Amino acid sequence: MTAPAAPEPFTADVYAARMRHAIDEADRAGLDGILVTPGPELVWLTGYRPTAITERLTVLVLTADREPTLMVPMLERPDAEGADAAAALHFVDWADGDDPFAQARALIGGSSALGISDSAWALHLLGLQDAVPRVAFKSLTQALPMLRAVKDEAELARLDAAGAAADATYGEILGVRFAGRKETEVAADLARLLREFGHEQVDFTVVGSGPNGANPHHEAGDRTIEEGDAVVLDFGGLMHGYGSDTSRTVSVGEPSELVREVHEVVRLAQQAGVEAVAPGVACQDVDRAARRVITDAGYGEQFIHRTGHGIGTTTHEPPYMIEGETQPLVEGMCFSVEPGVYLAGRFGVRIEDIVTVTASGGRRLNTTDRSLAVVE
Amino acid sequence: MTAPAAPEPFTADVYAARMRHAIDEADRAGLDGILVTPGPELVWLTGYRPTAITERLTVLVLTADREPTLMVPMLERPDAEGADAAAALHFVDWADGDDPFAQARALIGGSSALGISDSAWALHLLGLQDAVPRVAFKSLTQALPMLRAVKDEAELARLDAAGAAADATYGEILGVRFAGRKETEVAADLARLLREFGHEQVDFTVVGSGPNGANPHHEAGDRTIEEGDAVVLDFGGLMHGYGSDTSRTVSVGEPSELVREVHEVVRLAQQAGVEAVAPGVACQDVDRAARRVITDAGYGEQFIHRTGHGIGTTTHEPPYMIEGETQPLVEGMCFSVEPGVYLAGRFGVRIEDIVTVTASGGRRLNTTDRSLAVVE
Repeated sequence: MTAPAAPEPFTADVYAARMRHAIDEADRAGLDGILVTPGPELVWLTGYRPTAITERLTVLVLTADREPTLMVPMLERPDAEGADAAAALHFVDWADGDDPFAQARALIGGSSALGISDSAWALHLLGLQDAVPRVAFKSLTQALPMLRAVKDEAELARLDAAGAAADATYGEILGVRFAGRKETEVAADLARLLREFGHEQVDFTVVGSGPNGANPHHEAGDRTIEEGDAVVLDFGGLMHGYGSDTSRTVSVGEPSELVREVHEVVRLAQQAGVEAVAPGVACQDVDRAARRVITDAGYGEQFIHRTGHGIGTTTHEPPYMIEGETQPLVEGMCFSVEPGVYLAGRFGVRIEDIVTVTASGGRRLNTTDRSLAVVE
Repeated sequence: MTAPAAPEPFTADVYAARMRHAIDEADRAGLDGILVTPGPELVWLTGYRPTAITERLTVLVLTADREPTLMVPMLERPDAEGADAAAALHFVDWADGDDPFAQARALIGGSSALGISDSAWALHLLGLQDAVPRVAFKSLTQALPMLRAVKDEAELARLDAAGAAADATYGEILGVRFAGRKETEVAADLARLLREFGHEQVDFTVVGSGPNGANPHHEAGDRTIEEGDAVVLDFGGLMHGYGSDTSRTVSVGEPSELVREVHEVVRLAQQAGVEAVAPGVACQDVDRAARRVITDAGYGEQFIHRTGHGIGTTTHEPPYMIEGETQPLVEGMCFSVEPGVYLAGRFGVRIEDIVTVTASGGRRLNTTDRSLAVVE
């Protein structure tokens, strides 16, 4: 597999429709609008990704009473005007020494409740709260958790392509040497392969060998991989702006009986999670379906994280497959199903695919073999 | 020049002293303490840099009434316990499904005013404000702007090394081909060289050729560089955790009279800015000294940004050299002096060194030739 050609960029019309959708959703949630700072929501709504996210305030103001307005530092205005959504945006700027919050007040002073990007800086939220003390702010995840959750066809095509590139990476990594090499070396192979297969950004390359695999957030360290290790591989990033994220657990040489047993439990749990996916099913029921298999096998205490997270222009976003999340699944949602079992001090097993909701159930965007692969 | 050996990591004692200093400074600023989320302040205070900054709350609580406490998602606790400051930290964790803000309330509920990291997520600040509504929050930059501004000897050694690596990069880039290549190709050369000379992270590689140079925040684009272009080069990143940032403007072939003239004005302005540096001088006087030279030459309207910014574990931090900043300079502060002139549609010129304050005045950490270099 070689890197596929870049898809056509989204048009200003697509972005304009997304911005209208956001304003409608805000209205339904009882908000006057939303404020969007640099990050995945701004990319999704405008295609604009500032060179760096800094202390200088950049904010997209989406309210029903004015056209979409992007406020930017004067220095960055030329870049912002190059955004794919530019034709659908009104621009205002502020110069070093100006008070950007006073300018923001002119745009939002009449509001009573606004959503704001989850990752907006506290520096900026505090400045806004001072400038417009009567406005109640809510985080976008709290107010509009599903704003970006349902993917359209063009987005699904990108997620499919990113998944295929991650799968190609897995196919190649099975052929590299594990025993005697450091985790960081295998992680570097994963990063190189993701880029070769078309990723512009690598977000994580987990190589958790032996006891390190029992820490689900271990990245990759100096440990030398040994014959007999179970090794958790979990890798992904962005390709054409959309995410990939897949995990497989491999055995270096012949696996022990315990590794075989735990791997099979996790494989069946992952299968049960995917099979639970259908329109109208609550997110928590995907978690429950996977968790039940693991609990029934006696490893419930060793499955110490949620079953999955949404994916799109970020590799972690709503919907979350977690107990308590009653949001019903909708066709076009995309998320991970990734149960795991972690035996402290010994090894871990995790198996993960990205899944999208279709009318007939879950469709995997990762399709590599989920049985326990033996590597050298 | 080859990449220098990594310095010794800072010890838990160094981090403990920094945390005590932060608590003292908070007290002087009328705060009960500070909350520090992942990012440069957390790195500076603990050496801890989570694999990814996510929606899961991680926060360091520094108050006078308890030992420094790092609250982390359970999944990330093993990584956090590997931080260089671990011996000086108390850890608490929360699991998926727990309410992290309720746990935070137990730690900070008795406070009346707390500082919080500038780049803390709005999602987290809003959650904290809900959990402890009587606590007034202030951004760290507003409350303790100079917390990290004065560098100790070990930090200065790192900034010196990063500056030397950036200077070596400039030395090499003068020998590459400019004419006929795209800006992005020269930018890739800059990134490669910074890494070769020891940077672990490249933050920006500006190549602003001809009219693109007139946009001070242009990064690098598809424009093919032409004979006769002035080209602004502005590049930097992190080496051993500390930043570099330098700019030079070069001419591809013989410069025009106008390019020569503007370059000389900016060179003299930069010299004046550096010469204004001394302990006790207000930051704004460094800006004024550089700006006066440019204004007197008739280009005041074309110098559209502040003269400089601090640098340390980030490439942009206080102190800022800007009109209105009356903070007096203190020995050990490090910041850029980077005046520029931008002629829209034609070209730009910027010259930048990192400067540290010594008892006898400013000392440049970038020492490459500031005269107008001619490249091919």
